[in-house]
Amino acid sequence: MLINCVLYQEGKKIRDIPMDENARWRAEGDGFVWVALKDATVGELEAVQRQFGLHELAVEDALQGHQRPKIEEYGDSLFFVIPLVEMRDGELQMGEVDVFVGPHYVVSVRSRSEHGFLGVRARAEREPHMLRQGSTFVAYALLDAVIDRYFPVLDALESELDRIEAQIFEGGAARSNIMRLYKLKQQAGELRHAVAPLMEALGKLLGGRAPTLCLPSQHYFRNAYDHLSRINAATDSIRDTIGTAIQVNLSMVTIEEGEVTKRLAAWAAIVAVVPAFAGIWGMNFKYMPDLEWAYGYPLAIGLMVAACGALYSRFRAAKWI
Amino acid sequence: MLINCVLYQEGKKIRDIPMDENARWRAEGDGFVWVALKDATVGELEAVQRQFGLHELAVEDALQGHQRPKIEEYGDSLFFVIPLVEMRDGELQMGEVDVFVGPHYVVSVRSRSEHGFLGVRARAEREPHMLRQGSTFVAYALLDAVIDRYFPVLDALESELDRIEAQIFEGGAARSNIMRLYKLKQQAGELRHAVAPLMEALGKLLGGRAPTLCLPSQHYFRNAYDHLSRINAATDSIRDTIGTAIQVNLSMVTIEEGEVTKRLAAWAAIVAVVPAFAGIWGMNFKYMPDLEWAYGYPLAIGLMVAACGALYSRFRAAKWI
Amino acid sequence: MLINCVLYQEGKKIRDIPMDENARWRAEGDGFVWVALKDATVGELEAVQRQFGLHELAVEDALQGHQRPKIEEYGDSLFFVIPLVEMRDGELQMGEVDVFVGPHYVVSVRSRSEHGFLGVRARAEREPHMLRQGSTFVAYALLDAVIDRYFPVLDALESELDRIEAQIFEGGAARSNIMRLYKLKQQAGELRHAVAPLMEALGKLLGGRAPTLCLPSQHYFRNAYDHLSRINAATDSIRDTIGTAIQVNLSMVTIEEGEVTKRLAAWAAIVAVVPAFAGIWGMNFKYMPDLEWAYGYPLAIGLMVAACGALYSRFRAAKWI
Amino acid sequence: MLINCVLYQEGKKIRDIPMDENARWRAEGDGFVWVALKDATVGELEAVQRQFGLHELAVEDALQGHQRPKIEEYGDSLFFVIPLVEMRDGELQMGEVDVFVGPHYVVSVRSRSEHGFLGVRARAEREPHMLRQGSTFVAYALLDAVIDRYFPVLDALESELDRIEAQIFEGGAARSNIMRLYKLKQQAGELRHAVAPLMEALGKLLGGRAPTLCLPSQHYFRNAYDHLSRINAATDSIRDTIGTAIQVNLSMVTIEEGEVTKRLAAWAAIVAVVPAFAGIWGMNFKYMPDLEWAYGYPLAIGLMVAACGALYSRFRAAKWI
Amino acid sequence: MLINCVLYQEGKKIRDIPMDENARWRAEGDGFVWVALKDATVGELEAVQRQFGLHELAVEDALQGHQRPKIEEYGDSLFFVIPLVEMRDGELQMGEVDVFVGPHYVVSVRSRSEHGFLGVRARAEREPHMLRQGSTFVAYALLDAVIDRYFPVLDALESELDRIEAQIFEGGAARSNIMRLYKLKQQAGELRHAVAPLMEALGKLLGGRAPTLCLPSQHYFRNAYDHLSRINAATDSIRDTIGTAIQVNLSMVTIEEGEVTKRLAAWAAIVAVVPAFAGIWGMNFKYMPDLEWAYGYPLAIGLMVAACGALYSRFRAAKWI
Repeated sequence: MLINCVLYQEGKKIRDIPMDENARWRAEGDGFVWVALKDATVGELEAVQRQFGLHELAVEDALQGHQRPKIEEYGDSLFFVIPLVEMRDGELQMGEVDVFVGPHYVVSVRSRSEHGFLGVRARAEREPHMLRQGSTFVAYALLDAVIDRYFPVLDALESELDRIEAQIFEGGAARSNIMRLYKLKQQAGELRHAVAPLMEALGKLLGGRAPTLCLPSQHYFRNAYDHLSRINAATDSIRDTIGTAIQVNLSMVTIEEGEVTKRLAAWAAIVAVVPAFAGIWGMNFKYMPDLEWAYGYPLAIGLMVAACGALYSRFRAAKWI
Repeated sequence: MLINCVLYQEGKKIRDIPMDENARWRAEGDGFVWVALKDATVGELEAVQRQFGLHELAVEDALQGHQRPKIEEYGDSLFFVIPLVEMRDGELQMGEVDVFVGPHYVVSVRSRSEHGFLGVRARAEREPHMLRQGSTFVAYALLDAVIDRYFPVLDALESELDRIEAQIFEGGAARSNIMRLYKLKQQAGELRHAVAPLMEALGKLLGGRAPTLCLPSQHYFRNAYDHLSRINAATDSIRDTIGTAIQVNLSMVTIEEGEVTKRLAAWAAIVAVVPAFAGIWGMNFKYMPDLEWAYGYPLAIGLMVAACGALYSRFRAAKWI
Repeated sequence: MLINCVLYQEGKKIRDIPMDENARWRAEGDGFVWVALKDATVGELEAVQRQFGLHELAVEDALQGHQRPKIEEYGDSLFFVIPLVEMRDGELQMGEVDVFVGPHYVVSVRSRSEHGFLGVRARAEREPHMLRQGSTFVAYALLDAVIDRYFPVLDALESELDRIEAQIFEGGAARSNIMRLYKLKQQAGELRHAVAPLMEALGKLLGGRAPTLCLPSQHYFRNAYDHLSRINAATDSIRDTIGTAIQVNLSMVTIEEGEVTKRLAAWAAIVAVVPAFAGIWGMNFKYMPDLEWAYGYPLAIGLMVAACGALYSRFRAAKWI
Repeated sequence: MLINCVLYQEGKKIRDIPMDENARWRAEGDGFVWVALKDATVGELEAVQRQFGLHELAVEDALQGHQRPKIEEYGDSLFFVIPLVEMRDGELQMGEVDVFVGPHYVVSVRSRSEHGFLGVRARAEREPHMLRQGSTFVAYALLDAVIDRYFPVLDALESELDRIEAQIFEGGAARSNIMRLYKLKQQAGELRHAVAPLMEALGKLLGGRAPTLCLPSQHYFRNAYDHLSRINAATDSIRDTIGTAIQVNLSMVTIEEGEVTKRLAAWAAIVAVVPAFAGIWGMNFKYMPDLEWAYGYPLAIGLMVAACGALYSRFRAAKWI
Repeated sequence: MLINCVLYQEGKKIRDIPMDENARWRAEGDGFVWVALKDATVGELEAVQRQFGLHELAVEDALQGHQRPKIEEYGDSLFFVIPLVEMRDGELQMGEVDVFVGPHYVVSVRSRSEHGFLGVRARAEREPHMLRQGSTFVAYALLDAVIDRYFPVLDALESELDRIEAQIFEGGAARSNIMRLYKLKQQAGELRHAVAPLMEALGKLLGGRAPTLCLPSQHYFRNAYDHLSRINAATDSIRDTIGTAIQVNLSMVTIEEGEVTKRLAAWAAIVAVVPAFAGIWGMNFKYMPDLEWAYGYPLAIGLMVAACGALYSRFRAAKWI
């Protein structure tokens, strides 16, 4: 679906170009055309391919979707596959923005995403001194907008980790902790699989061997790279912490089990006193003088209670109970 | 076994060349000959070696089989060892395609594989503008076809992991979970040992120091490289998840064991009440007034039931039972 | 908040420059201006941006704060983001010093930190032969001062680790050990996330491709790099040791549990002797000659005591009790 | 001990050179001398050192033995330290072949090894077109022969791993499994410490900066490198699998223990029924009508049996027994 | 403390230079001065700094001590920080040798070490052809002497590991094993923290970009590098093995615990037979014909013994006892 298609010159919007005005889609002079598509059909993609001479392999990748994040050079043009990561109802949703950039065009194709990028265009049009950098700045602006959406996802993961940590040392939630840690590790993995290759690809746009198309926006791409490394480091840190947390959770379970064992054993010992004594006075020996005593019975009961009490206070002192 | 042997010029099939037409096997002009062999005998390989001047070491590798995936330069020719991975009845089967590429020939030798590559030839012949890139494009096409067959294997592994994950948190299947995780880890390892060195080797065909033979198909090889990195990342992710899953499985076993221990202990405590009380009233003291009471017996039973009930409800409240 | 703003020439302080003396803020001749700000407002940052032509992205980063440690080149100027790590009441506090360095200015912006850097300026003014190296030396001096504050944090972490280690093998503190190890691992992680990227960034200022601005202070930056690598190695070592300590703690818990189990079992066995014997002599067979013996009862008690004693000494020998 | 010493020219053996014919040991013209020593004495090594001008440090290394595998350049000559790994009676034996290669000589010194390399010389003499590549080809041939002996060691380790894996999931052999896994990990480590540095060293002989001496045999050294990477990858894979297997073994022990605990608890519960009931009817209340019933006793026994049976079938259904 | 200070020319000792002969300390002609200090005071270091123009930062590092192992270039001079590792009474002692090397001087400063390096000087003076390489050879000789002292430390660690391994599978020493493994891991870590950065620093003295000062001694530094890599690999291997050994120790504890549980349970079952039977015949039913039998009592006892015996032999067969 075509969202819009606009001609820019010297950083300013010149006019909207209708979909059917095929012959004049190409930018005139030194401006560029910015085409935004959403869940593009084969026909739409073939149309822009013909217009701007996009490379067959890039178009194929955009059609298939679910590509690995990457930035590829095809001659003097670039092809970005930027992963979209959104958190909906506690689940990560993975979308994709594919951006084709040539000296005189930018084509962005958004797939499997709820939120659009109209704000990016609006902001870019408010800053003509930026837009004057050319079509690559648009690619940067889109990339930057996508990266900005990673941060709330990262925050959600970090908050979940905080919540789990608060429970680990409280005990009694070992099973749910481990389930949540497992899920969190997978989500952190998904975020990482989006961020890490994108960062790596972006790294190639920086430094001495960057494509000429990117040179005017070098500082901006480096800034985006920086944000990605921050997210990447934070994700690695979450994953590492989860590993430790799983170990710690197991340790806590084992410790708790040990405590339960001790408590049970203590009570078992206390209770075992009664039948031991009772068994003795339940024997049928003919000559058992204690059985004849007038206060034998209450004394026996008293002895049992005293023995239990002694054990109880001893276990109490040893903190087993 | 010779599958077929065809001469191509300017991207078009010229004619089949029979096996015995030795003297004219070499391509004429600027075309190339595409020879496809299956489970090649020593004689067949020596025949093509003589025809195209293949390097002794490459031919030796192809004869031995079970080589590490690799792409080697011998002068102006290339030698590909591409691993075939197929899933049959839940087991991974490893085959191999060896491809010799020179400016005027492509020789592919398929070993230990059920499925052929006739589709690759058919598709290539339908796209003469591609085939015009020369013999290296054929190598790419074969490589691409092999890589496409890795994806269903990857899918099978990922589905198995999903199925195991569903069981881990349900309990009661710890033993079979651990067995399946172990097997899955080994299969993921096998897939990785096929993909990772191939990716590494392919990486050397890209960038500034690529062999000249590969230059016209650079974008295509980069695309294949991309697919391999996707599979590689997914395999790494499976292996990493399995590691966590094994830990989680152990945690779940320990947690479950702790719960069983508590449950048992609770019942043991409840049952221990009866002999304790019974022991008391089973003592043979002469003066035990309670034994004389008319309703002593039912009262005793009632007391036992009440004590058991009290313990039961208490354990119930603590969720031990 | 402006702390101070001073003009230096040939390594010597010339005079303070008031905040409003805008037009003459720039350094005259070959000297440089050193502006120190604390928790700078947007207005203040924009003022220095206008004065020295700082790059928009760098200023934005300084305003936002919480950046990843980094050192970036913008034309012939440098932008440092240096993390401040302080230990207050057992918790790590993360602050930030942002430093903008150009040939004729240094602007330092300190955020979220209790302690200032007046000492750095005082010391620099006492060493004019150093200050003569120019504005970059000031950046080095600030960096060095920040790094010097990492060492007490590292010491605190190492001492805490020592304290925990002393307890691990003593037993009885498994739960608090694991909690402290977990917290320590996170703090070591935070320190590492400050140090490692800073070290990496600093590494780029050394060697053949260093920015010309840094050349006169090369040896000094290398020295700072060295201190960072020392801290980094020590932090890695702490983290690694914590991993082992968590494992060891779990092992100790398991070993202790095994010992408790043995001790309990031994006592259970000893106590079980009494009801077994008592049960026998509590049977109601008509013909049980032992029940008729005059000393049957004391003999029975003696037998029970003897059996218990035998078991006790046996378990004692096996070190179960 | 001198094994033999032969002069080769243009790939063909010219004649044996006796040990004492010192003055004419050096090769004449463009041939080379191949000296083979075994467990060389100081005197023998000093003799060859004087003859061929070997570097002092290389000779010292060869005398000391137990060096790290390496390939070093000394001027226009090369020094190989190649580890020999043999499996004898289930134990790894580490030997060493040191090879000095110059344009006109090859000196091989074999230490701590049972099997010689006469086969290498015999084969080399049968292939004069190979031997014509010069002295470096001999180094390759020796290297290749050593590498060929790594494969049976690798096979032995893999078979042992297979055997252990078969037992892990069968249960009852946890202790011997863990011992065997531990030993296997160490053996795999030893193999790896032989292969990995050799591979790394060999890698430097390939590519653009290779010593000129190696250029004619480049393809051959690359082939040897390939075999080493295969062994290295397989060894890494074994080590990785052992890590998982140790975890799995622990899991299986824990699972088994849980099952034993359940089984014991079930039987304990069944057995505990009897004294509970018996205790009740063993009480001495005066008015216990059930004790008067004619069929009280058999009914009581019947009730106990029934209760035990009910518990038994219930535990059976829950698969605890 | 000044140990000695000697002038060398053409590899030969010319004469000792007294401490106060300040003006003539510098080497004359193309020789060099070798100054050896021990636990140098500020005054001594400042004296040599003035004499040879040492860089302020290097001198500061030498004064502070406890630096990270490193080799730094200051103009045409080098500064080595070489860690000394000695084993005293089972504890690692860390010392340091700082070496300043210029074309015409070598200054070595030894700190916190019991053993001196007089042997190095003696040996160097016996080999004038070596010493002729100049001042850098002295640095190599010191480095080599320090590295030679790492080997006995490494041997001590390896022997301790062997001793622990022998105990792990014997059982009954789990607690001391884990303590010793923990300590060993820390010692291996300390050794590694000495060796690894030194190796890395040394690596920069090799290859194409080595400082000119080092060129004549290249082969020697490479040899030292080699020894360091051997120690480094061995240390890594120890650390890796310890990791596995800790896991194995935990497994053995768990296995042993399982065995104890089984043994206890078996005995509990055997002992539980007695009160169960005794309870039955202790019931007070009026009509219990077995109680009337003349041989009821011995039969009952016999039945109990038989039941216990049957259980015993059954558990024995299952290897629980």
